[in-house]
Amino acid sequence: MALAEILAEERPRRAGTAAALAELAETFGERLVTGEDVRRAHGHTTTYIPNQLPDAVLFAKTESEVQTLVRIAARHGMPIIPFGVGSSLEGHVNAPFGGVSLDLSGMDRVLQVNAEDLDCTVEPGVTREALNAHLRDTGLFFPIDPGANASLGGMAATRASGTNAVRYGTMRDNVIALHAVMADGTAIRTARRARKTSAGYDLTRLLVGSEGTLGVITRLNLKLYGIPEEILSGTCPFEDVTSAVNAVIQTVQMGLPIARIELLDALSIRATNAHSKMDMPETPHLFVEFHGSPASVTEQAATFAEIVADHGGGLLQSASRAEERSRLWKARHDFYWASMGLRPGAKAIATDVCVPVSRLADCIDETRADADSAGLIAPIVGHVGDGNFHVTLLIDTDVAAEVANAEGFMKRLAERALDMDGTCTGEHGVGQGKRGYLDAELGAAVNVMRSIKTALDPLNIMNPGKIFTLPQG
Amino acid sequence: MALAEILAEERPRRAGTAAALAELAETFGERLVTGEDVRRAHGHTTTYIPNQLPDAVLFAKTESEVQTLVRIAARHGMPIIPFGVGSSLEGHVNAPFGGVSLDLSGMDRVLQVNAEDLDCTVEPGVTREALNAHLRDTGLFFPIDPGANASLGGMAATRASGTNAVRYGTMRDNVIALHAVMADGTAIRTARRARKTSAGYDLTRLLVGSEGTLGVITRLNLKLYGIPEEILSGTCPFEDVTSAVNAVIQTVQMGLPIARIELLDALSIRATNAHSKMDMPETPHLFVEFHGSPASVTEQAATFAEIVADHGGGLLQSASRAEERSRLWKARHDFYWASMGLRPGAKAIATDVCVPVSRLADCIDETRADADSAGLIAPIVGHVGDGNFHVTLLIDTDVAAEVANAEGFMKRLAERALDMDGTCTGEHGVGQGKRGYLDAELGAAVNVMRSIKTALDPLNIMNPGKIFTLPQG
Repeated sequence: MALAEILAEERPRRAGTAAALAELAETFGERLVTGEDVRRAHGHTTTYIPNQLPDAVLFAKTESEVQTLVRIAARHGMPIIPFGVGSSLEGHVNAPFGGVSLDLSGMDRVLQVNAEDLDCTVEPGVTREALNAHLRDTGLFFPIDPGANASLGGMAATRASGTNAVRYGTMRDNVIALHAVMADGTAIRTARRARKTSAGYDLTRLLVGSEGTLGVITRLNLKLYGIPEEILSGTCPFEDVTSAVNAVIQTVQMGLPIARIELLDALSIRATNAHSKMDMPETPHLFVEFHGSPASVTEQAATFAEIVADHGGGLLQSASRAEERSRLWKARHDFYWASMGLRPGAKAIATDVCVPVSRLADCIDETRADADSAGLIAPIVGHVGDGNFHVTLLIDTDVAAEVANAEGFMKRLAERALDMDGTCTGEHGVGQGKRGYLDAELGAAVNVMRSIKTALDPLNIMNPGKIFTLPQG
Repeated sequence: MALAEILAEERPRRAGTAAALAELAETFGERLVTGEDVRRAHGHTTTYIPNQLPDAVLFAKTESEVQTLVRIAARHGMPIIPFGVGSSLEGHVNAPFGGVSLDLSGMDRVLQVNAEDLDCTVEPGVTREALNAHLRDTGLFFPIDPGANASLGGMAATRASGTNAVRYGTMRDNVIALHAVMADGTAIRTARRARKTSAGYDLTRLLVGSEGTLGVITRLNLKLYGIPEEILSGTCPFEDVTSAVNAVIQTVQMGLPIARIELLDALSIRATNAHSKMDMPETPHLFVEFHGSPASVTEQAATFAEIVADHGGGLLQSASRAEERSRLWKARHDFYWASMGLRPGAKAIATDVCVPVSRLADCIDETRADADSAGLIAPIVGHVGDGNFHVTLLIDTDVAAEVANAEGFMKRLAERALDMDGTCTGEHGVGQGKRGYLDAELGAAVNVMRSIKTALDPLNIMNPGKIFTLPQG
């Protein structure tokens, strides 16, 4: 969606907002904050979509407080924008119609770890790193890892994934049940704690990926996994991206249970070398990780090495010690920051698409050629085992022509993914930035989504202006 | 739900049905069948819920014909009950309010096998065995296997699973995208073919498990898997159910990637020995299977053998040859038929619950004691790796006291599962039989489901009377 369109719809403020804010101030006192700095920090802060400030920020502590907020907002038709840590990339936390940013970072308790059942129950403000720190002595871990140290509520809301998805799935696969406050203030629980169920509609999966537009997630029941007995990470250089991607395709097709398989193109390697003080040769690399018993990891690594050799790749530089592994994956997760070093002072626009893996090499090749001919600095990294990759554009957002050039490129990228039967977003979500592609991707199904939205949130108070536009805004 | 209640609501026939049928007869000619035998075969035929016949059966061949049917039905407010092979267990295909049974068995083409992407596209009438027969030369397979040779459309509609779910997931996890005709006749496609997506609400997962109440599934895009290099199956006797279940719990907690782990109690073994001409000792058994490379399978089997020994289990009787394995799993899948041999002439009522695995031994113990004290012949089998088990009651349904006794037992079983934070149905679905438990299980969330149903099917023509009752029937 072009910036001009996003800006054009800003702040036709809802009539009841002032009255709602007065009621909230009375109820919540100083936990309702209206200072500009705090409000600005709760609008979109990452990448290029302009910051659209809420009218106030409420720091909630309990589900019951969330219910109180929602009931007041519903009475006055005021928007609510759920906020975790603000690391989403498509304008999800902006307040184009004003209203209250609901900061859930204070709901940060790990309520239960059921080690015997390999699950846990957490509040939405717990971050993925905080959860894993909490689990440290249990032998268990939670695998989903978007680059940022995102909140688990936000990760569920955007259906996040990351480097481990090829083995462990995405948030779609790892949320057992949710508690949520719906638009009328009702608190629901979407499922019990059993691993599978056929009891009615899958409201868990409906809320995962709904980007705060249907309800506020107030509690999550998540799957956990035993920390593998053996973990081996490594990097592997290739002559070109096509060879690397073909090695990935063969790995996936063989059903090798690889835990991580990440592509960084030559430009990404250059940025990572500089930012994370590494010294990889400046060619495309795969970053990989194997999980399992010692024998299984050895076997997987050997099979993978054969695949790599078939595609002309270099030797696997392995990192089996925990510190080496952490350093490697920290470098990968820091890529967003590293990319900024490619053009100091520029903003980084991270976009993502996902295609069937058989089309991945073509999609990346065409995208590379497109970026080059558009004169864009555009490193490519990706969770290539899933067919998912990111292009990060380094742009001076104060120069209109650069913004237009980037927007044209992103539009062509989304269309290219759709032409290959892929999606305009594999893991970042739609937010404000990708609303323009949804109809092309899913056609009449988007109207079914709109019907559900209208049925569950008739006043359109839950994060309005995200995923799709509605007649009432 | 008590039979009396199910019967009481039968056939307050919708006013427009006759007019709709006349229009359908004109459009579809002899593919609209009204003979009683055919209608009876399309009502509920498995277990105890009485057969409630539709007014006619339509044998559709294309999505466009499904759209035509739905549009005519919508104009006249006539119910449509999607029908695959009729193997569901909770009255899903009954027509309590009359209307047309939509037989999709003629939509039985495998449209595409994308071997490189490990996926395929099929019509809803393709059965799981037909798909696997079609895949025979590709080295790929589709793992989900409820006992019956169900249609894939029906399996998606009821969120089916089976013996492989502990390793490969359920239909929830294995449907990439669906085509469906919604209640207004619109055809939608819920997602593209990419492995992951964050593009809007997860309509795929909303339709999976919706039991035909939101739309008619007309095409499925499904995940496939490479046939494992090595497969080892086996059986393992235990002194008692508790020891067997504790071995399962330890296996799951260790994260052993076991492909199948099934419990059959002593009574189930007796029935299976007789029906499938086997000669296992009449004690509880685990039926297991390991998938992987030869080295990995050997390692898994050795680890499992240690766990079994820890719990006093007997030696693993292994079956590595394909014919031995088929015989073993055919015996498991034929259990429903085998159980009938325990009381010739009786009907078999198969019920299912699912609990967190840490509660499984308690739940099965209490259930066994309850069945014994109620004087019920009630063999227990289960997909115990998921915490899911079935009790099959052998009942003379002509004797009211027996039916009442069985209903009391099933109610206590569902309540026991709920008390343990489990679900009243792990894989059979709600249908007519389990509507009475849904509110207790999910509370206010059921009203959210009702709102979605009402928004997407305001006339309640899509399989009415299933999952929940609505004010309008």
